[in-house]
Amino acid sequence: MKMCASADCTLTDFMRTKPEVETSFNRVPNQALKCGFGMQGVCCRLCSNGPCRITPQSPKGVCGATADTIVARNFLRAVAAGAACYLHIVENTANNLREIVLGNTGLNIKGAEVLHSLAGLLEIEEKEPAKQAVKIADKVLADLYRPRSQVMELVEKLTYEPRFKRWQELGILPGGAKSEVFDAVVKTSTNLSSDPVDMLLHALRLGISTGLYGLALTNLLNDIMLGEPEITSARVGFSVVDPDFINIMVTGHQHSMISVLQDHLVTPAAVSLARSVGAKGFKIVGCTCVGQDLQLRGVHYQEVFSGHAGNNFTSEALLSTGGIDLVLSEFNCTIPGLEPICDQFLIKQICLDDVAKKANAEYMPFNIKEGEIVAEQIMQAAVKSYAERRNKVQIDIPKHGYDDVITGVSEKSLKKFLGGTFQPLIDLIAKGAIKGVAAVVGCSNLTAKGHDVFTVELTKELIKRDIIVLSAGCTCGGLENCGLMSPAAAELAGANLKAVCRQLGIPPVLNFGPCLAIGRLEIVATELAQALNIDIPQLPLVLSAPQWLEEQALADGAFGLALGLPLHLAIPPFVTGSELVSRVLTEDMEQLTGGKVILEGEIVPAAEKLEAIIDQKRKALGI
Amino acid sequence: MKMCASADCTLTDFMRTKPEVETSFNRVPNQALKCGFGMQGVCCRLCSNGPCRITPQSPKGVCGATADTIVARNFLRAVAAGAACYLHIVENTANNLREIVLGNTGLNIKGAEVLHSLAGLLEIEEKEPAKQAVKIADKVLADLYRPRSQVMELVEKLTYEPRFKRWQELGILPGGAKSEVFDAVVKTSTNLSSDPVDMLLHALRLGISTGLYGLALTNLLNDIMLGEPEITSARVGFSVVDPDFINIMVTGHQHSMISVLQDHLVTPAAVSLARSVGAKGFKIVGCTCVGQDLQLRGVHYQEVFSGHAGNNFTSEALLSTGGIDLVLSEFNCTIPGLEPICDQFLIKQICLDDVAKKANAEYMPFNIKEGEIVAEQIMQAAVKSYAERRNKVQIDIPKHGYDDVITGVSEKSLKKFLGGTFQPLIDLIAKGAIKGVAAVVGCSNLTAKGHDVFTVELTKELIKRDIIVLSAGCTCGGLENCGLMSPAAAELAGANLKAVCRQLGIPPVLNFGPCLAIGRLEIVATELAQALNIDIPQLPLVLSAPQWLEEQALADGAFGLALGLPLHLAIPPFVTGSELVSRVLTEDMEQLTGGKVILEGEIVPAAEKLEAIIDQKRKALGI
Repeated sequence: MKMCASADCTLTDFMRTKPEVETSFNRVPNQALKCGFGMQGVCCRLCSNGPCRITPQSPKGVCGATADTIVARNFLRAVAAGAACYLHIVENTANNLREIVLGNTGLNIKGAEVLHSLAGLLEIEEKEPAKQAVKIADKVLADLYRPRSQVMELVEKLTYEPRFKRWQELGILPGGAKSEVFDAVVKTSTNLSSDPVDMLLHALRLGISTGLYGLALTNLLNDIMLGEPEITSARVGFSVVDPDFINIMVTGHQHSMISVLQDHLVTPAAVSLARSVGAKGFKIVGCTCVGQDLQLRGVHYQEVFSGHAGNNFTSEALLSTGGIDLVLSEFNCTIPGLEPICDQFLIKQICLDDVAKKANAEYMPFNIKEGEIVAEQIMQAAVKSYAERRNKVQIDIPKHGYDDVITGVSEKSLKKFLGGTFQPLIDLIAKGAIKGVAAVVGCSNLTAKGHDVFTVELTKELIKRDIIVLSAGCTCGGLENCGLMSPAAAELAGANLKAVCRQLGIPPVLNFGPCLAIGRLEIVATELAQALNIDIPQLPLVLSAPQWLEEQALADGAFGLALGLPLHLAIPPFVTGSELVSRVLTEDMEQLTGGKVILEGEIVPAAEKLEAIIDQKRKALGI
Repeated sequence: MKMCASADCTLTDFMRTKPEVETSFNRVPNQALKCGFGMQGVCCRLCSNGPCRITPQSPKGVCGATADTIVARNFLRAVAAGAACYLHIVENTANNLREIVLGNTGLNIKGAEVLHSLAGLLEIEEKEPAKQAVKIADKVLADLYRPRSQVMELVEKLTYEPRFKRWQELGILPGGAKSEVFDAVVKTSTNLSSDPVDMLLHALRLGISTGLYGLALTNLLNDIMLGEPEITSARVGFSVVDPDFINIMVTGHQHSMISVLQDHLVTPAAVSLARSVGAKGFKIVGCTCVGQDLQLRGVHYQEVFSGHAGNNFTSEALLSTGGIDLVLSEFNCTIPGLEPICDQFLIKQICLDDVAKKANAEYMPFNIKEGEIVAEQIMQAAVKSYAERRNKVQIDIPKHGYDDVITGVSEKSLKKFLGGTFQPLIDLIAKGAIKGVAAVVGCSNLTAKGHDVFTVELTKELIKRDIIVLSAGCTCGGLENCGLMSPAAAELAGANLKAVCRQLGIPPVLNFGPCLAIGRLEIVATELAQALNIDIPQLPLVLSAPQWLEEQALADGAFGLALGLPLHLAIPPFVTGSELVSRVLTEDMEQLTGGKVILEGEIVPAAEKLEAIIDQKRKALGI
C-alpha cells in the first residue's frame, strides 16, 4: 500500500498495520500528477467560455484576462475565503461571549483578568464586567458588520501605532470585515476587476481583519470565556486515548462551542451514565486546532480532557485506533476522509455548524443558549455509540506521542514566565544567545516533503542555528508528536540556544496552540517591538508557514505580510504563473509593508534564507 | 484570422476588416482545448495538497472529498459569487436612492408612482414620499446586513404566497443576504462542508435573495430614481454612434451611477464645451446591461442617450469603430479585452467602482453625494480624450442594427399596453393563440455555438412554435441586433403568434432590458399565476439561459429553480462530474421546488423539450 511520508513514523508504521483503512496518506500517490495550470494559478473557471488556461500560445483567456489578472483573482478569492472562515469563528465567538455574560447559558466566564485588560485596551467605559463583555462583543460584531466604506473602529486600538500609520498611508485599513470579504468575492468575479495590484492590496486588508479579529480577538474572547493559558506539561499522541472511557474526538476551531460539553461530561450523572454501559466516564480527545486550544488551556480542563492526539492529517489514523466513539466537529479541519472511516469503525459523527456539515454526519444546530440541551444530546449519542460499537470493533492504540510536552504558552503566560517582562528574551537576543525568533506556523499538508516533514525538519534546522521557534496551528500537532516541544529537544538546538533552554527548563520550540494563536505571536512581536521602540519589520523575527494547506493559511499569511514580516512558504500559493503577482509578493511588498513572501521548497536552503534575514535584521539593529 | 461565429454577421464581417484588433472572438480558437476536469467540475484547488482531480483511478481528492463534494462546493461558491455581484448592485442602488431623497445629491426622483406602490407593498407607514423612500432603502439595507440567523423581513412581502410557503417548508428562506453569501464561501472552504445536498439548498437560498433583492428590488429602486420604462421604439447597433459627438460608452449594471451624468452632459455649458473642441455635444452610447437599462427607460433620456450598441461581446467591436472617446464602467461586464483596444484607439477608461477596476483604467471613486463633481470630471476627461484622439484614429462605423426595436417593456408597461390587466395575455394563452411563454434570458457567451447563436436560433425555434419569448440581459442585445425585437420579426413566428403580433403591432420577442429585469419577468409570472390562482410552477412558462456566461447567471438560475421553473442551459454549469449533483438539479429538484435544470446543447432539441414542458403544463391546466 503506497503512502506518503510523515515525520511521525509511529503514525505511518501504525497505518501500515491497517491496510483495510484508506487515509489521505494513501490518496497522495493517486493524486500525484498535478495540473500545471492549477499549480501556477493560470486556470480560470469563472465563466462558461472557460475553463481557460494560459500558455505561451494562448496568453489570454477568451475575455482577454491575462495571467496576471487570473492569478490575482484566484489568489484574492482564496484569501477572502480564508478570511471568511476566521471571521465566521470570531462572530460566533463574540455571540457566545455575549450570551454567557448576559446569563443566558448557565455558563460562567473564567478569564476575569483578561476581560478587564481588554476592556481597557478597547476603551470600554462600562465598569461592571458583564456589561464590559457585552460592550466588547457588540463592538466586535458591529465592526464585522460594517459596510466596507466604514473603517472598523477597533483596528486602531488593536494595532501597534507605527503599523497603523503605515496601513493608513497605504490605504489598506479595512472597512467592515465581512464586507471586505464580500467585495473581494465580487471583485474576483467574471469581468469585474482586472487590476492585480489592487487585488493584492485588497488581500492585505483581508489579512488585517483576519489577524486582528479572526485571530487576536478570537483568542482574547476565548480567554475570557474559557480561561487563560498557563504554562504546564501535557501528554500528546494516540496514547492519550484511554479505551476505558467513552471518547469524544473534537475537531474544529470554535472552542467556545465545545465549552458547553466540558462541565456536562464530568457531572456525577454523566459518570453514572457512562458506568451504566461499562465505561469509566467521558473523555474529550483533542484533534486539530480545537484540541490544541484545549491543550493550551489544559489547566482548566484537567478532568475531562484526555490530551491532544494530533493534527489535521493525524485524525484518520486516530479513528483507526478504534478508540473513538464519537466525532464532534464544529468547523474545519474535519477532513472528508474521516467519513468512511467513521462508517467502518461505527463511529457516530455530529456536526454543530452547518458550514461544516459532513455528508454522513448528524447536524445538530448549535445555539449556546441551549448549550445544556445540545451537550446532553451529544452525551447521549456518545453513550449510544459506545454501547453499540465497542463489542464490534477492535481497539488498537499504539504507543505514540510524548508525556512531557510543554504547553500553555501565550503572550501573557510567556511574559509571566520570563518574570513579567519580555526584557530577558530581548537580552538573550541582544547578546546572541538566541539569534532570533522564527514563528513556524499554520497547517500540515502532505505535499511539502510529506506529513509534517518540512515543518519538523525546518524547525530542527532553525533551532540548530540558535533561532528559537514559536509555533501555532497544526504545526504544533506535528512538532509535539515528534518530540520537539519536550524539554529534551534542547539537545537538538545550537549550543547557545541549548544553554538557554536548559537553564529555563524549556524546549527550543514553544507551543502557542491552535492556528488562531498566530494572533498571540503578533502580540508578542508587537510587545518586543514596543520595548525596543522599533517597528515590527525591524525585529529579527521571521515567519514560516512551510506546510500551509488551506485558504485560511493564506489569510494568515496576508496578515503576516501586512505586519511587515518575511513569510516563508514551501509551496507557492498558486501564483507562479504571474510574474507580476509573484514579484509584488516576493519583492515589491517589502517597499509597501516591509514584508515579503519567500518561496523555498527545500529545507536547508529555507533555513539558510530565514537565518540570513535574521542576521541582516540583527545587523541593522546593531546587535 | 480565426474567429468564432456570431449570430450577428455584420459584426463579424466588420471585425474581419480589422485584422489589427484582437477580440474575444479571436481568442476562442486559442482556448478551444478545454480541461475536461474543469468542464465537469471535478477539479479542486482549495488547498496545497491539490490541485486534485477526480478520475476513475483517483475517485477522491487527497482529503477524501468525493466528486459530489467537489462539484457541489465549486457550484455553490460560483452561485455565491454571482449572488454577491447582484447584492453589491442593490446595496449601492439603495444607498443612492437614500442620498437622492435626502436631498444630498441635487438629483430628483423620476418615479413617484412606483415609490408609492412599493411603499404600499412593503407596508411602509410613512406618508411623505421622501420619507417613504428612505424607509424603503433602510429596510433593504437592513435585510442585506442581517446575520444569517435572521430571516430577511421583506422576503414575505415580495413573494407570492404559495412560493413563500414552499420555501418555508423547505427551510430555504434566506437569512441576511450578505451573510448567506459569506457563509456559502465559508461552507465551500477546505475541509468544511462535504454535504452536496445541503450545499444545493444553500444555492437556492442565494437564488431567492438574488432574485428578490439583487434583481426585483434593484429594478424597483431604479424605477423610483430613474423613471419607469415606457414602451417605445428605439435604434440599436453600431449605427447609434454619431461621430459628430463626444461619445461615452457605458458598461455595467449600476444604472443609478450613470444617472449623475445624464443631465450634466446636456447643459448649455456642456454643449458649449463640446463645441469648443469641434463636437456637437455629448452622447452616451449604451453597451452591456446598463445600456439595456438606458434603452428601457429611453423616454426619459432622449437627448443624451444615442441608443444601445450591443451586448458584452459586442463591446470590443464597438471600440474598434473608433467612434468611442471614453469608456465609463461601473461594474461588469467590462471584459478585460477592452483594455488593449482602448490603448490602441487612444480611448480613455474610467472605472467608478473599485470592484470593477480595469488594470489600465483610471479609478474615480463614486459617491453620489459628489455626483456633480464626478460627472464634471468624467465630462472633462471625455473632452480631453476627444480632442487628443480624433485626429489620430480612423473612425469606421458600419451600418449595423435596427431602427425600430420595441423597447421599454416592463411588468407595468406591458400590463398597461394590454389594457391594464394581463387577462388579454391569459386569454391568448388559454385559447392557444400563444402556446406559452419562454423567458430567454441571461448572457451571451462565445461557446454555445458562437456569439448569440444559440440564443437567436433557439428564440426563432420557440416563436415558430407559437411560444412568445420574453428576454432580459445580454440576450436582448443579441436578439435586437439580429432583428428579433423589431415588429417585422412577426414573420418568423408561427401562424397563431404571428397573427397576435400583427394585431398588436409587437414583435414576438419582448425586450425587458438588462439581466436585472429577470426580476421583472418574475413579477409577470407571479401576476399571471395570481390571476389564475395557481402556483408559478403550474404556468406554461419556461426559462432558458442558453448562453449563460457568468456566475451571476447561475445565481439568477438558482432563483428560477426556487421559483419552480424549468431552466434550460445549453452548457452545463460545471456539474456533470457528479451524478448526485446533476440528478438533484435535473430531476430531484422538481420534487422540492417544482423547478429543474434541463441541459441540452443542441438548438432544436432544446426547443422541443421546452415546448413539451409547455404542452404538459397546458394539459395539466386543462387548456
